[in-house]
Amino acid sequence: MDKDAAKQKFIGEFDALVTELKEILVNYNMPQEAIEWFTNSLYYNTPGGKLNRGLSVIDTYCILKNVKVEDLSAQEYKKVAILGWAIELLQAYFLVADDMMDQSKTRRGQPCWYLKPGVGNIAINDSFMLEGAIYMLLKKHFREDPYYVDLLDLFHEVTFQTELGQLLDLVTADEEHVDLSKFSLEKHSFIVIFKTAYYSFYLPVALALFVCGVTSEKDLQQARDILIPLGEYFQIQDDYLDCFGTPEQIGKIGTDIKDNKCSWVVNQALLKANADQRKLLDENYGKKDDESEARVKKLFNELEIPKIYQEYEEDVVGRLRAQIDNLDESRGLKKEVLTSFLGKVYKRSK
Amino acid sequence: MDKDAAKQKFIGEFDALVTELKEILVNYNMPQEAIEWFTNSLYYNTPGGKLNRGLSVIDTYCILKNVKVEDLSAQEYKKVAILGWAIELLQAYFLVADDMMDQSKTRRGQPCWYLKPGVGNIAINDSFMLEGAIYMLLKKHFREDPYYVDLLDLFHEVTFQTELGQLLDLVTADEEHVDLSKFSLEKHSFIVIFKTAYYSFYLPVALALFVCGVTSEKDLQQARDILIPLGEYFQIQDDYLDCFGTPEQIGKIGTDIKDNKCSWVVNQALLKANADQRKLLDENYGKKDDESEARVKKLFNELEIPKIYQEYEEDVVGRLRAQIDNLDESRGLKKEVLTSFLGKVYKRSK
Repeated sequence: MDKDAAKQKFIGEFDALVTELKEILVNYNMPQEAIEWFTNSLYYNTPGGKLNRGLSVIDTYCILKNVKVEDLSAQEYKKVAILGWAIELLQAYFLVADDMMDQSKTRRGQPCWYLKPGVGNIAINDSFMLEGAIYMLLKKHFREDPYYVDLLDLFHEVTFQTELGQLLDLVTADEEHVDLSKFSLEKHSFIVIFKTAYYSFYLPVALALFVCGVTSEKDLQQARDILIPLGEYFQIQDDYLDCFGTPEQIGKIGTDIKDNKCSWVVNQALLKANADQRKLLDENYGKKDDESEARVKKLFNELEIPKIYQEYEEDVVGRLRAQIDNLDESRGLKKEVLTSFLGKVYKRSK
Repeated sequence: MDKDAAKQKFIGEFDALVTELKEILVNYNMPQEAIEWFTNSLYYNTPGGKLNRGLSVIDTYCILKNVKVEDLSAQEYKKVAILGWAIELLQAYFLVADDMMDQSKTRRGQPCWYLKPGVGNIAINDSFMLEGAIYMLLKKHFREDPYYVDLLDLFHEVTFQTELGQLLDLVTADEEHVDLSKFSLEKHSFIVIFKTAYYSFYLPVALALFVCGVTSEKDLQQARDILIPLGEYFQIQDDYLDCFGTPEQIGKIGTDIKDNKCSWVVNQALLKANADQRKLLDENYGKKDDESEARVKKLFNELEIPKIYQEYEEDVVGRLRAQIDNLDESRGLKKEVLTSFLGKVYKRSK
């Protein structure tokens, strides 16, 4: 099945989940207007993105079971897809709130949910309910499985880690008060690992392992040891492309410099900058005008950030490949799960 | 132990829980500024209220075990107190967000968290982390208990119910667009049961039952059948006192009329009002001036709302007493748990 067909099949499961969630509200005799509101929020905020996280639960499951997705029974597919949608709901919960905290205007090419007429701050409660939906679905479909409690613990842990990453991001990069002395590569690493890597890279694989009956802490640790640096690499690549990628490459115009983002790029620059260059950064980073942004970009090039990035990329990919080579497959985890993830990220920058 | 001493003993457990939560962040190598931020949020938002919900876990546990609180071992007390603090964290999570959604100014006599300098919309993520803290504490202290998964399911269910109540409240009572045709006693009942009764009345008793090893659905159902109407009565009393109580009685000046609240009082009035009286309500309810408020209050008295309230109160208390009398104590739940709750609410209005 090609990528598009796999995505359509996954999207095809979503309606049934919305119906199940609506049924909970109907059984509570919840008034119609609130049921409609919740349904609208689910549809507006959950599908619509690339769905990479949700799809990778299914991909990983198929690799672990050594089957093609088209050979899964409808029941088996549905169960794995629900975990995929659970990650997408978790992401929706974060994004609805992140957009409010960042005062973003658009998300996935449409207005942010909180900016829709009549929504406003109700979006906070809507984000809560997107998270709540995860546990309603998990209870309905996994309550009788031996790994149910592991699923719950995992979602709680990863949710808390992501919130920690978001907290550090928020207290580090204040758009109003630019202060580069708050930045550091260490903080950047912490933010991207906690805010992105755990739920985007580790969570899908851990969920697929659970459904396959692999709950050994050793295998989870092996997965984490590779997926967390891989997720960090993914985000560093994202930061790099925001500044040095073409709009065609990344599908948007990068704004990290103007937005005072604690990006990998500026952190590398801070590491190499002399006093004059630091002064230029202090005076121009986080400013909203094109001239300041151009001055910062010019400095980034003078400091050879692209070269540093290429070196970092070759180094991290080499290390990850070696780690994958050494992976112990005896308990159920497979090297191919990790090479598949690495392939998706490494290819992306080409 | 008197009420004040019991409260002080309960508060005395909080520092250790904050320390445990901080340790999680320290173990993740989280930078100091984020650890401090989280600590500040925990202290600012969690204690400071009446702590009735948290304390009632301990009260209920003592009644079920037929022991005095001073006779509990330190370990036993701590375990029950953690569940009490888990409810208070859940409440903190709701209140931080509710205050943002209602654009409230103060909470418990101090500025709302989101209004503190430098906080703003970061409060959304802070509310998430207050909820996240619940599951971190439950995992640490209850992971090995046979009822751990029941605890998690219960917290998820009650959290979702509360969010549903909040959603209906938000879509029903829009402060900007007053529309009394959106109100109804049925909606009022749904809102107060879901937004307040589950987490404030049912949750503490269910938690205490779990720690006592009572997880029978029959006993949980018996508790729910009494505590949910009792919680509804509590909120109706609250609505009544907001309008008809003296500021000395309720410790604040009621603002439900000016705030366009979908209160029990206005719903009773809507039920009895003739066309002229309805017109008066449409024109004056939800208006911010004192004259409009006075006209509404005068109408409420003409419609004999206080008499209707007295009748409702005697009726519901009579029914609850009869239900308690018929309670089956054979599986562990005790009548005294419910009479104690009823006593606290009934006495309050005297």
